[in-house]
Order: sequence, then C-alpha cells, then structure tokens
Amino acid sequence: MSSTGVSSADVVVEGETIEALLAPGSSLAASAAESAERVIDATGRYVVPGGVDVHTHLALEMSPEATVSDSFETGTVAAAWGGTTTVVDFCNQTLGDDVRRSVDEQFAKAEGQCVIDYAFHMSMGDVTDSALKEMPTLIDEGITSFKYYMAYPGHVYSDDGQILRAMQVAAETGAMVMVHAENGIAIDVLREQAVERGNTDPVWHGRTRPSELEGEATHRAISLAAVAGAPVYIVHLSATEALAEVAAARDRGRNVFAETCPQYLYLSIEDHLTQEGIDGLTYVCSPPLREHHHSGSLWTGLRADDLSVVSTDHCPFCEKDKLLGIDDFRLTPNGLGSIEHRMDLIHQGVVDGHLSIARWVETCSTTPARLFGMYPKKGVIAPGSDADVVIYDPSRRHTLGVESHHMNSDISAWQGFDLTGAVETVMSRGQMVIDNGKFVGRTGRGRFVKRGLSDLLI
Amino acid sequence: MSSTGVSSADVVVEGETIEALLAPGSSLAASAAESAERVIDATGRYVVPGGVDVHTHLALEMSPEATVSDSFETGTVAAAWGGTTTVVDFCNQTLGDDVRRSVDEQFAKAEGQCVIDYAFHMSMGDVTDSALKEMPTLIDEGITSFKYYMAYPGHVYSDDGQILRAMQVAAETGAMVMVHAENGIAIDVLREQAVERGNTDPVWHGRTRPSELEGEATHRAISLAAVAGAPVYIVHLSATEALAEVAAARDRGRNVFAETCPQYLYLSIEDHLTQEGIDGLTYVCSPPLREHHHSGSLWTGLRADDLSVVSTDHCPFCEKDKLLGIDDFRLTPNGLGSIEHRMDLIHQGVVDGHLSIARWVETCSTTPARLFGMYPKKGVIAPGSDADVVIYDPSRRHTLGVESHHMNSDISAWQGFDLTGAVETVMSRGQMVIDNGKFVGRTGRGRFVKRGLSDLLI
Amino acid sequence: MSSTGVSSADVVVEGETIEALLAPGSSLAASAAESAERVIDATGRYVVPGGVDVHTHLALEMSPEATVSDSFETGTVAAAWGGTTTVVDFCNQTLGDDVRRSVDEQFAKAEGQCVIDYAFHMSMGDVTDSALKEMPTLIDEGITSFKYYMAYPGHVYSDDGQILRAMQVAAETGAMVMVHAENGIAIDVLREQAVERGNTDPVWHGRTRPSELEGEATHRAISLAAVAGAPVYIVHLSATEALAEVAAARDRGRNVFAETCPQYLYLSIEDHLTQEGIDGLTYVCSPPLREHHHSGSLWTGLRADDLSVVSTDHCPFCEKDKLLGIDDFRLTPNGLGSIEHRMDLIHQGVVDGHLSIARWVETCSTTPARLFGMYPKKGVIAPGSDADVVIYDPSRRHTLGVESHHMNSDISAWQGFDLTGAVETVMSRGQMVIDNGKFVGRTGRGRFVKRGLSDLLI
Amino acid sequence: MSSTGVSSADVVVEGETIEALLAPGSSLAASAAESAERVIDATGRYVVPGGVDVHTHLALEMSPEATVSDSFETGTVAAAWGGTTTVVDFCNQTLGDDVRRSVDEQFAKAEGQCVIDYAFHMSMGDVTDSALKEMPTLIDEGITSFKYYMAYPGHVYSDDGQILRAMQVAAETGAMVMVHAENGIAIDVLREQAVERGNTDPVWHGRTRPSELEGEATHRAISLAAVAGAPVYIVHLSATEALAEVAAARDRGRNVFAETCPQYLYLSIEDHLTQEGIDGLTYVCSPPLREHHHSGSLWTGLRADDLSVVSTDHCPFCEKDKLLGIDDFRLTPNGLGSIEHRMDLIHQGVVDGHLSIARWVETCSTTPARLFGMYPKKGVIAPGSDADVVIYDPSRRHTLGVESHHMNSDISAWQGFDLTGAVETVMSRGQMVIDNGKFVGRTGRGRFVKRGLSDLLI
Repeated sequence: MSSTGVSSADVVVEGETIEALLAPGSSLAASAAESAERVIDATGRYVVPGGVDVHTHLALEMSPEATVSDSFETGTVAAAWGGTTTVVDFCNQTLGDDVRRSVDEQFAKAEGQCVIDYAFHMSMGDVTDSALKEMPTLIDEGITSFKYYMAYPGHVYSDDGQILRAMQVAAETGAMVMVHAENGIAIDVLREQAVERGNTDPVWHGRTRPSELEGEATHRAISLAAVAGAPVYIVHLSATEALAEVAAARDRGRNVFAETCPQYLYLSIEDHLTQEGIDGLTYVCSPPLREHHHSGSLWTGLRADDLSVVSTDHCPFCEKDKLLGIDDFRLTPNGLGSIEHRMDLIHQGVVDGHLSIARWVETCSTTPARLFGMYPKKGVIAPGSDADVVIYDPSRRHTLGVESHHMNSDISAWQGFDLTGAVETVMSRGQMVIDNGKFVGRTGRGRFVKRGLSDLLI
Repeated sequence: MSSTGVSSADVVVEGETIEALLAPGSSLAASAAESAERVIDATGRYVVPGGVDVHTHLALEMSPEATVSDSFETGTVAAAWGGTTTVVDFCNQTLGDDVRRSVDEQFAKAEGQCVIDYAFHMSMGDVTDSALKEMPTLIDEGITSFKYYMAYPGHVYSDDGQILRAMQVAAETGAMVMVHAENGIAIDVLREQAVERGNTDPVWHGRTRPSELEGEATHRAISLAAVAGAPVYIVHLSATEALAEVAAARDRGRNVFAETCPQYLYLSIEDHLTQEGIDGLTYVCSPPLREHHHSGSLWTGLRADDLSVVSTDHCPFCEKDKLLGIDDFRLTPNGLGSIEHRMDLIHQGVVDGHLSIARWVETCSTTPARLFGMYPKKGVIAPGSDADVVIYDPSRRHTLGVESHHMNSDISAWQGFDLTGAVETVMSRGQMVIDNGKFVGRTGRGRFVKRGLSDLLI
Repeated sequence: MSSTGVSSADVVVEGETIEALLAPGSSLAASAAESAERVIDATGRYVVPGGVDVHTHLALEMSPEATVSDSFETGTVAAAWGGTTTVVDFCNQTLGDDVRRSVDEQFAKAEGQCVIDYAFHMSMGDVTDSALKEMPTLIDEGITSFKYYMAYPGHVYSDDGQILRAMQVAAETGAMVMVHAENGIAIDVLREQAVERGNTDPVWHGRTRPSELEGEATHRAISLAAVAGAPVYIVHLSATEALAEVAAARDRGRNVFAETCPQYLYLSIEDHLTQEGIDGLTYVCSPPLREHHHSGSLWTGLRADDLSVVSTDHCPFCEKDKLLGIDDFRLTPNGLGSIEHRMDLIHQGVVDGHLSIARWVETCSTTPARLFGMYPKKGVIAPGSDADVVIYDPSRRHTLGVESHHMNSDISAWQGFDLTGAVETVMSRGQMVIDNGKFVGRTGRGRFVKRGLSDLLI
Repeated sequence: MSSTGVSSADVVVEGETIEALLAPGSSLAASAAESAERVIDATGRYVVPGGVDVHTHLALEMSPEATVSDSFETGTVAAAWGGTTTVVDFCNQTLGDDVRRSVDEQFAKAEGQCVIDYAFHMSMGDVTDSALKEMPTLIDEGITSFKYYMAYPGHVYSDDGQILRAMQVAAETGAMVMVHAENGIAIDVLREQAVERGNTDPVWHGRTRPSELEGEATHRAISLAAVAGAPVYIVHLSATEALAEVAAARDRGRNVFAETCPQYLYLSIEDHLTQEGIDGLTYVCSPPLREHHHSGSLWTGLRADDLSVVSTDHCPFCEKDKLLGIDDFRLTPNGLGSIEHRMDLIHQGVVDGHLSIARWVETCSTTPARLFGMYPKKGVIAPGSDADVVIYDPSRRHTLGVESHHMNSDISAWQGFDLTGAVETVMSRGQMVIDNGKFVGRTGRGRFVKRGLSDLLI
C-alpha cells in the first residue's frame, strides 16, 4: 500500500530499517520467512507507512492558566495507538522570547518522553533580526520549517514586514515557511465588539473569525511569498475562500501548499459550536469550525491535491481548562485533540467515497514526509527507510470517545463517532509499539528526527 | 527513483518480474548479489521504471497515400532506445468500419513485431449502437479506454450526442474516455477559406486551428463528461486555453485528466511552422504547434499536475509523405515522431528546472500506468511488478537527429536538439533490450498487456 | 428617471417626439405648460422611457399543431398595458426556407396590427450561402441582428461551422449575432433516453436540458465569436454556468452580452415544473426553469451588468396547446407569456432590493435600445427622441393572472403573483395608448422601426 | 453627448442651471434662441457635461520640505482649461492630528480661490475613536467619503482593525470608503533594503512597490469591506493583479469600485521611471508606474466597467522639489500633475479605439458624480442640473508640455504628448470660464459642493 496505489509485498525488517520488499511467493521471500525472528501475516489488512502528523502541540503552556493536557509521553502514546509514528511539534518562541531558549526548552520537554519519533518546527513569535539570524543554524540542526502567525496580535503575531523578512531568509536557505493565516488585527476588533455587546457564548468564537478573514490572510501570505520567492505552507486551512486562493496559486505552478485537519472535515459551527457551556467550549479552536458547506470543499480539495496534507493541530485540553471561557469565549484555551484519530478519520473518508486509499497514504504519510524533509526515511515503505509500518484493518468498526481514547483529556471532540477501519499493529523503527491491539511501546524510545529541506520545491 | 522521490535500493529481478528491492549493504543484498546471474552497478545513474507512452500510432494507414513510417517493429525498437518499455497504441475504427474488424487488424499488425510490451486503446471513429455495444466486451479483453474525435468531420468525427452516449457507457463500465478536443466543424470552415484565399503554406495549418477552438472543445468535452458522470482524458493538450479548462475542472475535484506531448513543450508556430516547404511541413501535426507563450503554460501545468501525463502522439512520416502537402497544407499527413525522445526531452525539463525528477518519473511512467489500468504491473519498481527497468545516465550529453535516431524516418522534428541525460540500459520484463547502449532486443518478444480499469478515478 | 439616476424634469411632447425637457418651475416650463394641449401631473410617480422588449414571438406558427396565442395585435396591446412601447420580434427562416420569404411573411403579419412600434431580428434557421448573402441587405433594411440556434437539430439548428460563417459576416458588417445557447445535439439524446425510460412528465423537460449544457453552449458561442471577431448576444440566459462564461468574457473586454427573462428570475424547476399535467406543462419553456439557486445568480448578474438586458422571450400558448404534451413532454410547445409583466416584475426586483431604479430603466429600456441600434430614438427621454413615455406608480399593488391580464391566453405562468408598482399611463410616439389605466390605443398605429447598428460595440 | 450615447439637443442655460434641453429645430428651440442672451453654435463639436475629477491634491503640504505646486487657484484654473468643472480634493488628517482642524484648514485654503466648484473627501490618517465619531457629522456637512491608507506606515497608515472600524461606520451611515491599496508595511521593508544595497535611483521607487503588493492590499480591502458590509472604492488602481480582484468582486455583485489615472494608462516603468536624475524623478508617484502590460489591462478594465472612474491623483511638484530625491528615491515627494489633461488623455483613448465616446463621458463625469453623491447636480446635462457644460472639439490636435500647460510646474509628465481632441469652451454653473480658448474665469467664483450619499450602492 503506497501513495501511488495498491500492491502486494512481503516487508523484511532488519534492525531499525526496512531491509527488503519481496514479491510474495518468491524464493527470496521463502528464505527470508525462514530466517525471520517473527513473521506477521497481514492478509486482508493494509500494510502502510506509519502516519506522519506534522502539526501537534504537546506540553504547550498556552497561558499561565492553561497547559495542553498531553505531554510528549501521553501524546505520542495516543499517536501510536492511532497509527502515527512521527510527529512534528513546535519550538515556541513568544514575544520577547529568545529563539534558542525556546528550542532548548522544547527539546528538554520531549527528551526521554516519546514512544515514537519526533521532530520540531520553529514557531517564531517574535521576528527580530537576531531571531532571523538563527534560522540557518536551526536548519543545520534539522529544524527546517518556520511558522509565523498573522493572528494573535500582542502574543505571537508578526506583521507583514516581519513575515516578508522571514520569507526572504527562507528563499535563500530553502526553508519552508508555515503561516497561520487569519487576519488577527481585524478579528480582535470583532472579538472586542462582540463581548462589548454581551455576546460571550462559544459560538461567538466562530462568528468573530469569519472565513473571509482566513481567505484574506491566505491570499496575503501567498502574495508575500511571491514577492520573496519563498515557498509557503498554510496550516490548518478551514475555509472555502482560503482553499480557492491556494488552488489558484498551485495552478500557476507556485510552491504553495496547505494542510487541513479532521475537525474541519467533520465538525461544524452549526452542529457543534452553537452548543452552550462545555458542549460548545469543547469545540473552540482556531481557525474556528465553519459552516457545513466548507467541509465539502475541503474534501474536494484533498482529492484534487489542492490540500496536500492532513495534520491534526492536536492541542487538547481538559474540561476545567475549557471552562475558563464559560463567561467569555475569549478566555477559553483554543484547541482540541485528534492525534489518535487522524488516520482513522481520513480512512473513513475513503470508506465514504471522498478519497482513494492511495490518497489516504499520501496525505497522511508520504506527502508530509516529503514536504518536511523526512523522505525517504519516513513516509514510505522502501528498502533503507525506517521500519515505521502500520498494519491496518480496513473493516473493523469502533467508536471514538473518552472511554476508549488514550489522549489525556476528559473531553473529546469526537465523542460517539462510529468509524470503519482501525489500527492493528504499529512498528516504529523496527520495534513493536502496538502489537495486535496491545500497547508494547516504551517511553523514551522515540528519537529526534533531524530533518532536511523539503523535497517538493522547484 | 520513483514518482515520490529519490532513494537507493538494489533491485532483484527473477524471471520477468521484480523479486525484491533490497537495502544496499544489507545481508540480503549481499547474498542476493552472490547468487545473481548478473549484477549491474548503477552508481551515479538513475534506476527508473520503464517509460509508458500511452499515445502512439504505429503502422497506421492514415490515408490511401500515406502510412505512418514506423511499423510496430521499428517503432518499438525506437521506443526501447529511448527508455520506453510499454506503448499503448490504438485500434482504429473509421467511418463505416466495424469495431471488431479494426481490433483484429491492429492486433494482427502488432503480433510478433514488438520488442517491448504494448496495449491498445480503442479509437472509435463511428459511434453506432453496435459500436457502443462492443465497449463492455473490449473492456473484458483489456481494452479499457476509448478515444473519440471532436475533429476530422467526415472521417472519425463524433458529434456531441455520440460522445455523450459513449460517455454514458463509460460511466457505467468504468472505462476511460479519451477525447481529441478541437472543434473540427469550425476548423474545416477556416481551412477551406484559407485555401480559397490561396493560403496554402504549412503555417496555415496552424492558423486555421486557433487555440480558442481547442479551449472550446476541451470545455465541451468536460461538460459532456459532467452530464454523463464519466471521466475524461484530453489527449495531446497544446493550448493555454485548454489547460485552463482542465485546471478548473480538476480544482472542482472532477475526474478530468490531460496529457501533453514534447512537441508542444519545445516547438512553436513562430520558430518551426512558419518555415516553407518540407522545413515547415515536417512540423504539421494536430493540434498544431502553438505560439511560444503556450509552452510556458504547459510546463507549469505539468509541474502543477494539471497535466498528468506526457505522451508522444508518435505519428512519423517520411519526407515524401509530408511533401504531399507542398501545394496545399491540407494534404500533408498530420503527425511527427517522438517515441524515442520522450524520456530524454522531459528529463531535459528537469535539467532546465521545470520539473523535479520525481515528477519526471510520475508523468512519463507511473501516472500513465495508473490512469490506464496497468499499475502496479507497469509504472513502478516494486516487488511483483514487471521488471521494466531503465538505467539512466543524467549527465551524458547527446544530439538528436536523423543521423542517430532509430525511428524509421528521414526527417526529424528534433534535428539538432542537444540534450543532457541519456538511456544506458533497458530491461523489459527481465530481459535486456538495450544493454549499456547496445540493442540486444528481439523482435516479437513484446507482449500484449491486458489492461484493467483506471486506478485514479473516484 | 433615466438609466443614470433620478432627476426631476417637465417633458414636453410635440407631435411624435419629445420636444423638450424643462427644469420644473422654470419660466420655459411655465410658458410650455400654458401653451400645452394637455398637462399631466406625475408627482409621486416615475416618468420613464417606454419599455423595449427585444425578444418576443408574436403570431409564430411553432408547429402545424401549435401557434403562439398572441397575434401582433393582442401581443402589442398586452405589451402596452405593461409599459412596453417597442417590441423586437423575429422573422423566422426555418430549414429549407427562404430568408426573403420569411421576412415578407412576418412583415405581413405585423402590418396594420400593432398598437406600439415594432422591429425585427432575423432568426436564421438554415444558414446557407444564399442566406448569408442576404445579411447585408437586411441590415440596410433595418434588420441588423441575427439569431442562430445551437438547439433544435433538424429544425432551426446551426452547426458550429454555420455559426462561424454567420459571425464572420457579422464581423464585417457590424451586425449583432444572437445565439440560443443550448447544446441541442446532446439534449436530444437525453430527451430520447428519458422517453424510452417512460419519463414523460413535464419535469423531464427540465431534467433533459441540464444547465451544464447551457454553460457549454455559451462558452462555445463566445469562443466562436472570438475566432470570428464578432459580437455575440446570448438570448434567454438561465443558468449560473452560462452567466459565469459571459462574466469572464466581459471582464476580458469582449463584445459579449446577455439577456435574461423574468421566468428565470422568479420561477424554478422545483416549484413549478415538477407539477403534473397542465400545471407543469404551463412552465415548459427553453431553456427550462432551473433550480432555485440559479435565480440568485441571475439577479446578481443583472446588478453587476454581466446581464445587460431583461427581455421576455414572450411565447404564449393556451391550455389546449400545452396539453399536446400531456403524454410526452416533447410534444408540448415551448414557451410562456410575459410581455405584459416584464416592467412590473423587474420593478419588483427594485422593491425587493435586487436592483436600483436606474438599473431597472437601463435593463428594460435604455440598454436594449442601445444594443440593438434604436438609440436615441428609443430607450431614453431626450429631446428629439420618440415620445415613448411611461408614467409609473411605484406603490400601487396588484395581482397577476388570467382574470386580469390582456395577453391572449387562458393560462398564466404568473397566476397569483402580487406585485408592487404598476403602469398608469403609456404614450407611444406622442400618442396616448394607456391613459391613466384605460386602453386608448389604436390597432395598426404601431410602426416598423428601422434599426441601425449597435451602439455598444468597440 | 451623454454617458448613454450621442444625441443632438439645444441646451438652454438660465442663471446657474440648465433650464431646458430642446429638440433642435423645434418651435421651442426657435423661441428660446430668440430670447437668449447668447447662442453658441456647437455644430461639429461635442457638448458634454463638465468633467468631474474626484482625486486631486491641491495646496497639500506633503512634508515640511515639499508642498504641492498647485494652489486651489492655479489648480482649478488648469482643471478648467482641461474641461473639468468640479474637483474633489481632500481634507488631510495626519497622525496625531485632529479631524476638525484638518477640515477647517483645507476649507480655508480653498475659500475664495477656486474658479470651478470643489468638494472634499476626508483623508483620515489617524483612525481614533474621536475621528470615527466625526464621520456622521462630516456626512451632514457634505463630506460623504473617507479615505484610508494601507500604505505609509508612521504617517497616514491605518491598520486593518482601524480600517474595519471605519468601514463599519460607513456601513451604518452610507458613506463611501476609499482605500489606498498598497501593502505599506511590506513595501517599507523593501525600500529600506534597496537603499541599504545602494539602490537609490528613481527606478527603485517602482521596484520596491511590486504590483503583487497592490493586488494583495486590494484583495484585503475588499475582504474587510465584505466583513463590514460596506462599499469600497479603490483609488488610483494601477496593476493587473488589483484589477482582477476588483473585477471578481464586481462579478459577485459587490459594492466595489475603482478608479485609475491617466499615468497608469500611458506611462510605464520601462519607458519613464528607468531614466536617471530629474527625468526619472518626474515620474515618481504611488502606486508607481508599472510594466507596459498593465496598461493594456487597465484600458480593458475601463471598457468593461471594472474600472468605473478616471481621476488624476493630481499632485504636482516642481523640479526643485523632485530633486530632493536625487540621492535617495525615498526623499522625492510622490506625485505628478494631470489635472489639466485628463479629459484629453481619455478622449485620446476614444481616438485610439479603447473606449466609446459614451464611456468617456461616463468615466470622466457621470459616474464620478453618481458615485460621490453629486448627481444630478453634476455629471449630466439635464434640466435642473448645474450648467457645467463643455464644448469639445474632437478633431483639434495639440501637444502637451510645460510651454503650454497652465499647471504651476516647471516639469510635466506629459511633455511632448500629441493628442487629438481639445476643449473649446467651458461653462461652470452658467458662467463662462473658458470661452472659445480664452480664459475668462474669476478666482473665487468656485463654490463648495455639499455632497450627498452615493447613488450607486445597493
């Protein structure tokens, strides 16, 4: 099973890597099976490259009051349960902060905690000359992608001049620029006005972040990238307007990419964010859930490769954290958790006829690995690649929710979702992590992946 | 080397298929090397899946006066020299003709002649009820794609009702619909008027087939396919206007595909078709060569995957045939020969910075195999796949032209082109055909490929 | 009240023309009022140029079984009641017919029958060399626009070559090309298949003419016009897809124009055509009524001037005629009657906030006059212009229907529509036709308008 | 001559207004001619509504070092020479400034100086709560349009939140929002970098303001207006990218408008801004002159009504002022003078086949009057309208330049331009200002026009 289609092969793992792919029934296959320590019969199951989730927030202290509920340990355990074998998290520089310090801090948090492999993007929240000067060094250290925020003024926001400067450095160095594309300056006006009018319910989180302002920021990010000659990757794209901008740029042959997340494919402002109290607060994330019609566009965008990647923007909280916003939606920490469910939710898209199986592998594993400089180590089952292999049962049905999930949260945006397709076995660099439905991984075995430059630029 | 990127592996061939891909330096690789009959060291070269050219016209009697100069023998020899290991030719039903007869005829022509594998599309030039009824049968026989002409009224032209009916059958059966998208009815008016005005030079072949009329027909084909719920594949797309229609449909998630050909990427009406006599007639093909600016758009379309495939529309003639049109461009047989140069010309696009290497493999081998139901037998180096393997030297320079080419023609549209990158060795189903620059193939060893349905529809 | 906005003026009519526009309260106004035969106080009402309906079918024998129910007499009476003072009907050449004969016939039908002024387009249903040769002569005679059909194969259909030839003549002569843009060849396949499956109800009239096939034909008409260098006017545009093509062409500065009709702005396949028996048959017209969402697009198109004109395509029948299709929708004569209601229905669009008053005047009077060579004689209140003046009460409410309408039909597509705004007085060339709600016109007073070339081409 | 076409009429002026339009040869015309003080025979000439230039900068102190060279006196004299009878200038609030003070100042500058009528937009350079609160008051005073800058950070720049707030007030009050759409934040980065690299020549003024950043800001302004529900008018649109955004919004029926200026239609970066010294500095304006291909798009946009208005952005300087930037393009005051040449330059577009005569009147007079709440007082020749009338000789040839122009500048961006068409006589509110080529106006006779809300919103 690969990003180009379905074929049958025996996979030979030796140590941490894939040693061979063998034609079933061949003499080499027979002799390999004989000498193997262990042989797994995957008949009727899919053998796919381990998932690559390039947008997670583990152990993130979002504010003095609210820290993400998953540590690198609990988060990577949950990821493994869901068939993901690599996560790319963020080193988080905030306003007034030092890039190097934020890198050291995040490495320290992850060190010895992960059960699968991990890498980091640099989230640059204060684009100063000295921060820009760190970029080449970070690239040498395997942090080859840099995220900037058009949202959150006063916190991690960059103005267009800062983003342009960063893009210029990216153009020179080959780094990938990631952008949170919402017009935070305008949004903050709407938020303040809403609260002044007494509109403090969760749904106003959505209504004060209209999709036009995501379309706007996406267009702006693409324009700035054109001026700088840099590639740009739009994170967590949620809106039809934004997708249209990405599609238009891609048709012009530009190095423009975007990811979406499962929440934008399945959840909506009408069905979820309009609920009161914790029921609505659970769904507060940014960009917000959108009206129904957006999700249809996003599935089309995934099929058409205008959306290249599915990541999670995994950013889970517990009920008590979410309730910080009970009287004012602005005080709710933004985010929800999906790290465990991404592969299943997109496989469900295959079941529902939105995508082909090849495209499932491509959007969840191969393309994220290629885009972020981890291919062919990650994202593919090929000789010499890391033996990150998932055996997936496409017909097993199961139900998502707090009773069964492994993410460290007492709420779930996915409560009660019935899905067809489930992970059976997960191998990470040749070691069993999930063995036929049992967790057998070891905390701390996950290793930092030093990434190269993107494979997909031209 | 694959459609997703570059990696290193030892390829083990056993009989006709690839038995294994092995990590270089692994113990399996060592033992496989020991037991191998022959080991080829491809260090510094690319090992790529054999090329798949899905648009060739071999042994085609175009008119009583003019037959294509390449037989299945000479054409497949030339293809092999150029690193192509599979061609998909056409069974050609013409007006008043019987589908079955045309199939039998073309099979007979190919039988025992080919040095590489071959398959057939059905070119349906007379869409009658009985012709449509043959479609399911042909699909069972491995002819799963059907070509219709919006051009050439009075010959192979189908009106929109005929094309719609055929598309309806395709929608039911899963067949692929191929369309020659030029408005032949309008073009014939322009051709007649040009000659009435005394405009008989080769350039008028181009001027009477304006790009608007390719854009028009492409839009029409896509609209009819939408009504029928069928996929559509635009052959030999040459014009910016047509590309825009394909891109727009693909952005909407539609099963719309297109190929272009090397002549539209490199040659132009200004530089080539404006020449007088045989110098211009050499370049008469349909759609015609376009103005320069179109080729820039086409390279962008290839990069952006709005163009999925590069084929040749190989349709070579000798000088004497071309000279039939010396006094009236309409009498020149349409077509030129590129079967030998496709892989090199698109590799040159990699050298020139238009495409990535992965995209070269994808457009010339993997995607055509997937689109036309030959994957994973063809188009990929994977265990169990046919051992169609090319060893390609990316740095060897050479010059194209009649002195050196193996196509059976005394003229060449590519005379004097200097290219970087050349085929070194070609293996077809495990057998050497080109061995380090020497032809060692055998006439008649090529086999008919019974194709399945397309992999790329959803 | 004009196409550019609202102002106050006294209008002086002398004989057939407007002699003066005077500032109210000026000394000239005072003296003019003194010497006037009659003074009408229009305070609180609108004084607008008489409506110009450029698409009517009066006295048309559609088939041996069915003739349009309005003669030139009844039709122009109804038009006058509705504030229209000029109609442009068609001379109808059909397959095998002679252009000149069809012109003579239609002139004879109109002669002495009309109560308002009338003109003719040429509807060319058999584009032969001799028919094309008549075009310059007809232009000299004041028939400066020519309609061609992409629909109705076997009847008035022209193929793309015929349309291209006609467009070339138009390009040379300055004539306007009008196109019925539906792909009749494809539609006929769908119609036949529907009936074969037993789908004979009125709704199948709509389902077998999908909007994609109007979009397709519109794109094709625009492409052919580009090749010919001719202007093109799309009649009775009904579909979002078609509007998008027109808008795109206009953005490129092309001489592309379109009209829509009230039925496409107010009626729908869901609400009207799905009814059984006469209730559905009443709404059978071509293009068919569309799904709801199209009408929103059309109002936007009118506002944005992508749709330049509102005409009626007035083509009324009686119940007995419509019932010809009771067992097979294909046998129903296509068309419905709106000649009396156009000004009111579009004024209702002003009331509903879709359009400005200026745009109402522009789309219903000024632009049709300019586009079809009748300006400034028609379409404007200006000195020297024909005194075609309507006094309109914007606040009077009334209800449409067979009980009150003046069209010669026992059915109405507009039965029960409540509208705000009604005609009070209508003057045609200085003569009262409707005088404060009473008909005072005289049969035969209407005169043929010899039209010039379009004002709006560049 | 009007915005809808050509007709013949005698215009009767009584006092300051047009009393009547009379059919030539009518009895009223005869008696009016008899009793007239003066009769002008305009046979062979055009009689058009006086030009309305809605973007001028008179008496503007741009910096302590540089003040615009035209006062209200010299500027309006020059305007009158060029057939413009109304200018709309700006009250200029800058950072830290008080709105009311800036209004008083500009009124004082204009008071008693103008030879034609004038009005003011409010240019709001510091969007504070108190400034926003002045908007309704200003509307009552006839200042109904408000300009905001996305350019010039640190001077008159507004961020997106400020612009959004202002647009919200406009949505409530019916005011028009004008936007200078260039991304000043990004541009300032490029400017600083250019100078750091030693690129100080005039051409770098253009190269550091790339057209992508005008397209970007235009998209952003339109998006913000959509969120606020406000209309938006893009001033001095110069780039294809920006035009595409405006056209797309207008196709969606949005209240989006744009003007361009003669300099963007005729001058280019290649031909003009690349010159060294004063020759290049003369052409420094913002947005900058663009590459040739943009001007073709702009003419198309004017024809297609995607550009609604031609204004001048008249902002002239003398050589000594321009030379401030001789060592650093950033120090040159931005702007050039065209107030006298607008009508002629756009009439030249008619001569060159870009526009119709009606469109000339519409873009230069009628639409600006309608858009900015001066219709039907200004912009049209109609009874009751101000008698602002120009007699224009369409065939007289003349040459532009400092020798002959009346603008107060020793340089001209239009030096040596040969034009066909010239103003002969200009009447402003019934008074002769230019009488058959002689200036007969009186300083101070021009009056402030208290404007209403825009006519063109829906």
